[in-house]
Amino acid sequence: MNYFSSDFKLGILGGGQLGKMLLFDTRKFDIQTYVLDPSDEAPSRMACNKFFKGDLMNFETVYQFGKMVDVLTIEIELVNLDALEKLESEGVKIYPSPSTLKAIQNKGKQKDFYVENNIPTSKHLRFVDIADLKKSLEKDELEFPFVWKCAEFGYDGNGVKIVRSTFDLIDLPDVECIAEDMVPFKNELAVIVCRNPSGEIKTYPVVEMEFHPEANQVEYVICPARIDDKVAEKARAIALNVSEKFNHVGLLAVEMFQTEDDEILVNEVAPRPHNSGHYSIEASYTSQFENHIRAVLNLPLGNTDSKVAGIMVNLVGEDGFSGNVIYKNIETILGWNGVTPHIYGKKQTRPFRKMGHVTIVNQDIKEARRIAEDVKNTIRVIA
Amino acid sequence: MNYFSSDFKLGILGGGQLGKMLLFDTRKFDIQTYVLDPSDEAPSRMACNKFFKGDLMNFETVYQFGKMVDVLTIEIELVNLDALEKLESEGVKIYPSPSTLKAIQNKGKQKDFYVENNIPTSKHLRFVDIADLKKSLEKDELEFPFVWKCAEFGYDGNGVKIVRSTFDLIDLPDVECIAEDMVPFKNELAVIVCRNPSGEIKTYPVVEMEFHPEANQVEYVICPARIDDKVAEKARAIALNVSEKFNHVGLLAVEMFQTEDDEILVNEVAPRPHNSGHYSIEASYTSQFENHIRAVLNLPLGNTDSKVAGIMVNLVGEDGFSGNVIYKNIETILGWNGVTPHIYGKKQTRPFRKMGHVTIVNQDIKEARRIAEDVKNTIRVIA
Repeated sequence: MNYFSSDFKLGILGGGQLGKMLLFDTRKFDIQTYVLDPSDEAPSRMACNKFFKGDLMNFETVYQFGKMVDVLTIEIELVNLDALEKLESEGVKIYPSPSTLKAIQNKGKQKDFYVENNIPTSKHLRFVDIADLKKSLEKDELEFPFVWKCAEFGYDGNGVKIVRSTFDLIDLPDVECIAEDMVPFKNELAVIVCRNPSGEIKTYPVVEMEFHPEANQVEYVICPARIDDKVAEKARAIALNVSEKFNHVGLLAVEMFQTEDDEILVNEVAPRPHNSGHYSIEASYTSQFENHIRAVLNLPLGNTDSKVAGIMVNLVGEDGFSGNVIYKNIETILGWNGVTPHIYGKKQTRPFRKMGHVTIVNQDIKEARRIAEDVKNTIRVIA
Repeated sequence: MNYFSSDFKLGILGGGQLGKMLLFDTRKFDIQTYVLDPSDEAPSRMACNKFFKGDLMNFETVYQFGKMVDVLTIEIELVNLDALEKLESEGVKIYPSPSTLKAIQNKGKQKDFYVENNIPTSKHLRFVDIADLKKSLEKDELEFPFVWKCAEFGYDGNGVKIVRSTFDLIDLPDVECIAEDMVPFKNELAVIVCRNPSGEIKTYPVVEMEFHPEANQVEYVICPARIDDKVAEKARAIALNVSEKFNHVGLLAVEMFQTEDDEILVNEVAPRPHNSGHYSIEASYTSQFENHIRAVLNLPLGNTDSKVAGIMVNLVGEDGFSGNVIYKNIETILGWNGVTPHIYGKKQTRPFRKMGHVTIVNQDIKEARRIAEDVKNTIRVIA
């Protein structure tokens, strides 16, 4: 198949920042891309060959879009799976496959999948609604505290809550959900796995999410994770296993907990480029985005090793500011060694909206971490 | 000035592959860009905010384009300078400035500039036409062999010829030209200098152009050059001096000869991103393209050091093939360590047309050189 400067068409469902970053590589390779997104202001609108505005959950919209392309991939997992299944049955190549997406899209099914496949994960219970969950509490099958997650449509911490008492149940939406055991953990880790249809498979190094000591928010994604080599090896092996069991093609970001006694438990997965891999644009031989494109086109995968240490800081809208965005002090951080801001192109900021990220690379991970903290304390996303 | 996700507009004259690569960074920073190019199929057409089709040498076209933007830059030096001068007088910021472009656009003036500023360069004579040159030969002011260059509009080896006898004069076009002494040299080197309007200035490492032993064609651009540190320091110092003397803003690629006795002679300059800096996308902390954008917007310059060794191989159309391009064996080279093809997006190949380049990066420059040779011998640009 001739992908380069040819009539071949890659379709991407979703046109957010992940799609935008995928398009850097389709442009680099001059691969034709069609993008479908509900927003007129989608960051991917520019730099794709054709942009289509439409609802990703609408059967007809997704089906008609899919009929126009040769290979279809996603940058968001909330898409109409019935349309994908029909397209696949009609010969469109879809990566990740609808069956993989089905196993991942519902967090209850995803957790069941880990249990069925002997993949270490925290204990969980599934509930069709809140009444169902309350019954379980009454019967003492479920105990406080636990982690509540809505089964579908959660993202970026939305749809997740730590429930410590009946009081915490009041605000929860009445939807299908799961309850997970609270796991005391030392580190939250992630491994991105890349696999092509031929079965070639590679993992990126283990990254570490460093949390703010009080706010319990991820502040830095650090590559490589500052953990014992044996723990890192174990995490990579488990991530590989997860990817193979899902028979996954493309990128699979596997989020994991490192428990107090160095067990690795899989938390959840995302079948696409992931925030925890953004550092790879500057730090890796091959970025996660390029490897996603290579994988879904069944090209050989690129080297996932790092050239240098990389740290990623998210740029989120500051609380109390809404309106036309200003990146205050961005000129200052541009003057520092190895600092690259990525501005996603959303014109309006809102409190905690993901507006961009900053990568800091350095030969010395400690120096990168020092600069990252300065970046975090200097740049402000305001209106 | 707020450049990021704002109403600010950067104009780029020229929409070829250099412009395309500049747009990766304007997109990364979400800086609005307008592009002017004569071709409907300009590689920059996608990924800019607005594309205008028009003649870069036409006064009115360039003037009207310039009136729409806040800062104007170039990716090709053959543009209407009268329009730029008028725009500058009316307050449009133009980098590089029309006066710098004037001193560079004509190779005769450029050589005079070096002489006036005590910048080491080979001896030259200027001629208004071929008759003028022939008179000089008759008067023995000029002797065979010499290097003939047309004064304007040459590029990529066009407009350059080694003249060894009267016979070689027959095919030369009757235009303004110069004759330069033939310099026996060990190496052809280049240094890219980056300077912003505030006067911050940085140089990239010295790169070396390795020639095919028989064909006398550049085969590899190698960073860092495999030369003595002292020679490298001298080359960087001379390049810095050239940039300062031109009072240049943006990127200035300074091409130089290293003579048999380790003298450095300036050959010529290009006031824009340059083929000799393409390796920087993968190998440097900050690519030449990002630094050009930073410079013309008077932002702090990024680190010009390399993370790893980089080698660039041009992808040119193979002789004997014209038509819809096929990159034969590109799948093979994608499987090799640190290999990144850049496909410019020209749909039609022609003999020797520049269609793309491939970068090879590695911790070990010898390993990179070995892989580069395999790349060169494997990939074919055919129809």
